[in-house]
Amino acid sequence: MTDNRVYLFDSTLRDGAQTQGVDFGVADKIAISMALDAIGLDYIEGGWPGANPTDDAFFKDPPAFEKAGFVAFGMTRRPGRSAENDPGLSALLNSKADSICMVGKAWDFHVDVALGISQSENIDMIGESVAHCLTRKGEAMFDAEHFFDGYKSNRQFAMDCLKAAHGAGARWVVLCDTNGGTLPAEIERIVGEVCEEIPGTHVGIHCHNDTENAVANSLLAVKAGARQVQGTLNGLGERCGNANIVSLIPSLMLKTDFEIGVSDANLKQLTHISHLLDERLNRAPARNSAYVGESAFAHKGGLHVSAVEKDPRTYEHIDPALVGNQRHIVVSDQAGRSNILARLREIGINIDSGDAKVSALVEHVKAREYEGYAYDGAEASFELLAQRALGAVPEYFSLNRFRIMDDRRWNARNELVTESEATVTLEVSGQPKMEVANGNGPVNALDTALRKALVPVYPSLEDMHLVDFKVRILTPAAGTGAVTRVMIESADGEGRRWTTVGVSTNIIDASFNALHDGITWKLMQDGAAVPSGR
Amino acid sequence: MTDNRVYLFDSTLRDGAQTQGVDFGVADKIAISMALDAIGLDYIEGGWPGANPTDDAFFKDPPAFEKAGFVAFGMTRRPGRSAENDPGLSALLNSKADSICMVGKAWDFHVDVALGISQSENIDMIGESVAHCLTRKGEAMFDAEHFFDGYKSNRQFAMDCLKAAHGAGARWVVLCDTNGGTLPAEIERIVGEVCEEIPGTHVGIHCHNDTENAVANSLLAVKAGARQVQGTLNGLGERCGNANIVSLIPSLMLKTDFEIGVSDANLKQLTHISHLLDERLNRAPARNSAYVGESAFAHKGGLHVSAVEKDPRTYEHIDPALVGNQRHIVVSDQAGRSNILARLREIGINIDSGDAKVSALVEHVKAREYEGYAYDGAEASFELLAQRALGAVPEYFSLNRFRIMDDRRWNARNELVTESEATVTLEVSGQPKMEVANGNGPVNALDTALRKALVPVYPSLEDMHLVDFKVRILTPAAGTGAVTRVMIESADGEGRRWTTVGVSTNIIDASFNALHDGITWKLMQDGAAVPSGR
Repeated sequence: MTDNRVYLFDSTLRDGAQTQGVDFGVADKIAISMALDAIGLDYIEGGWPGANPTDDAFFKDPPAFEKAGFVAFGMTRRPGRSAENDPGLSALLNSKADSICMVGKAWDFHVDVALGISQSENIDMIGESVAHCLTRKGEAMFDAEHFFDGYKSNRQFAMDCLKAAHGAGARWVVLCDTNGGTLPAEIERIVGEVCEEIPGTHVGIHCHNDTENAVANSLLAVKAGARQVQGTLNGLGERCGNANIVSLIPSLMLKTDFEIGVSDANLKQLTHISHLLDERLNRAPARNSAYVGESAFAHKGGLHVSAVEKDPRTYEHIDPALVGNQRHIVVSDQAGRSNILARLREIGINIDSGDAKVSALVEHVKAREYEGYAYDGAEASFELLAQRALGAVPEYFSLNRFRIMDDRRWNARNELVTESEATVTLEVSGQPKMEVANGNGPVNALDTALRKALVPVYPSLEDMHLVDFKVRILTPAAGTGAVTRVMIESADGEGRRWTTVGVSTNIIDASFNALHDGITWKLMQDGAAVPSGR
Repeated sequence: MTDNRVYLFDSTLRDGAQTQGVDFGVADKIAISMALDAIGLDYIEGGWPGANPTDDAFFKDPPAFEKAGFVAFGMTRRPGRSAENDPGLSALLNSKADSICMVGKAWDFHVDVALGISQSENIDMIGESVAHCLTRKGEAMFDAEHFFDGYKSNRQFAMDCLKAAHGAGARWVVLCDTNGGTLPAEIERIVGEVCEEIPGTHVGIHCHNDTENAVANSLLAVKAGARQVQGTLNGLGERCGNANIVSLIPSLMLKTDFEIGVSDANLKQLTHISHLLDERLNRAPARNSAYVGESAFAHKGGLHVSAVEKDPRTYEHIDPALVGNQRHIVVSDQAGRSNILARLREIGINIDSGDAKVSALVEHVKAREYEGYAYDGAEASFELLAQRALGAVPEYFSLNRFRIMDDRRWNARNELVTESEATVTLEVSGQPKMEVANGNGPVNALDTALRKALVPVYPSLEDMHLVDFKVRILTPAAGTGAVTRVMIESADGEGRRWTTVGVSTNIIDASFNALHDGITWKLMQDGAAVPSGR
């Protein structure tokens, strides 16, 4: 039934970017949007073209999405200016977006206090902006800011704002609880009343979590008739965040009769995509997240565990495998044999689950995770770990030693300069190689020296470069016991991007481990041959 | 109206203690329960007497509560044994609790699979246990485990379980969504149906957050008739946690017609009590918590800030002071002049908006942001930047040079080791200081050497240490133009935590800049004096 189809609109890269401490680069936006498209989201809002250089760059050269509509966010035209002559609208229309989402006021108080214009001018701004967008783009939407406060303050005006957008041809009018203060029962009632005047198949909902009800408010809006839901990965967003699309997806799919564009197979990627975002943000995933948290299906010893062993339904509301998560028994950890098998299949390794190599790999992964390694977001390192367990990774080179110097001093022209210099001694097929190089810091110098030594033997390394470098200190409370985890993203001339991880008590050591994996992965992809020793 | 009175039941010390990694001692239980009593909670569940030594000790000598009922948790009598001869029940009745809360099965599937007893025996266990409790205690309650799953599986049996407790005189029958899988609309419907057969003034609700709906489910249960709500501070609890009582209290008080036992004055303690729990658990409070999080009333965008300054209701759903929280203006690349002025007032600098120093500061912030600095999340560096623009920051020390060496090699015991060593040459009041130190990496070695040189002059630096270290490469697409941003979080013995930022093309340089700010901020807080030069 068409009426049961709910459209998912992700705003991680736009409203989620308002989160305190979050600052996406273009590489982040590309990686996250591609993951969202792959899982089956209907709309991906990429940012606000014209507002900052990152969004301009992203909208100039966006990835090609398989399924999702690519949405640009902006404002309706300014007061006292025609839509045709509004530079903000022009930036939206000149972007490579499929669809334009424009925000405008729907609360009379805001029109009076914040804008200081007449209510009829506000309504004209909405209708004219939507109409103008549709001259250039196939789809336009209207985000009705503060809709619920506006509806309670002046119902007629709030509805007139929606009708101006709907009447001008907006595909969706989106009811935004901008301040996040509306409670579930009120959301349900108001959305129901709106859907009596505007068909719910054109009504969207956009909730914030200021009362910890954003997910429930979104679900109740759908129950009341709305058919588009806006949210963000992991509930990212300013203040207390937006509705968490990671919680909404499985609740809609597994617990209601509504239909969304995510397949059962893609639902299994949910835990992975949630962790991917956290890795991009360089922060630890919350253990207690609904559906995808490490503790979401954790059972402490005793009664629960034996009941769960008899029948998991006794203490689990869904099968964790449906969302790519796993049961976690705190006393005797059964960690992830099937999960690892699934991931092996994912990277093209088909192996019998009874093979002794699988047990060895499971043990190895557990040991590495105990040391502080994290393979969510470092797929290239996981792939190497798996291939090594199967004996399939050549030793392209081995390191004998390195020495790095960082020197900050006044140079001959009386400028304060910092120089980093690395000397490496390594072996390729038993032949020693020694090289020295400068860099923007110790890791960059080390990377440069390594590749200076290796390029003559493996020419394809020439076009490989370091794209991103992230550091996290683990167990910082432990003082001297602290361990450093480094994640390195590399890229090459063929458009490949891959991430590797290294862990050590010494940050330079951890960086070398991640660099070593990065170079090895690249050489394997290129099918490089280890030269025979002389 | 009596019907509008909702009773709050806190389970932080019982169900909250099931959280992975949480382990309350007796001192924690005393401090937390006294804070809960002071804020006006109706019931405080202290634990399970007879289950472990901590709970035994706590129930032997509990604090004297001014208002709250002190509740002991346990199980209904075992099968095949009389209530009088059940050692578990005896432990409850011998405790100093005012009230006993007993859990029992209400899902036929559990009775069949987990217990393996007849349904009538289960119903007898409930009624007889409640009746027996009331021979010794003034109040008994029944937690109906898995009530919602049970109701959907076998409505008659689930209701018979409730009625057995209610009929035997239980003050409350509590509907538990034990697996946390029930969605809001279903909770509302089922609670409404239950309240048609058992008066809502005897019905309680106990929700878990496995679908991120625990708070909404609790609110909707109250709307449907239930008059007792169980929850935990900060949503503590196993898996994804319990309903967060910190979110429930202000929503009920400020946004509904229901009455609870918390006064307006005590509501102002809400942020404090939430942080108190985190301190007891030795973890950083979540910035994005509803009502009480540091970001809950944070404003980032320039447009939002100027509107909030005109009238806070434009972008705040409640006055933050009502819950003891405060407005927070975030400085970021979206910052306008009004953001910066608001932020200056927040750190206690009152300056006329027309002052030329403000223009200079705005320009300076913009220039630094263009270089890659980010002050969102590095408040200490922003404060120094502002104070420097006003000429108020002493130069505690200046760096002449540093040299750092990282060496990876085989040591005498044939182990591969990496060593980092830093030499610094700096000046304090014209006096040169030179020191050398080892570390877990170049930054750690540099930090150690700097403080080795400075502690003799500024002894308060002794208890300062590095807590977190984050690195980000900016504009990675620019190749050689890439810049590194380092964020360093520091802490001291007085419980202060502060974050500083440094940017450079060289990561070591960027780290030094962030360290320099971190040390300077600490010395300013301590009111340290620069020694006069000899």
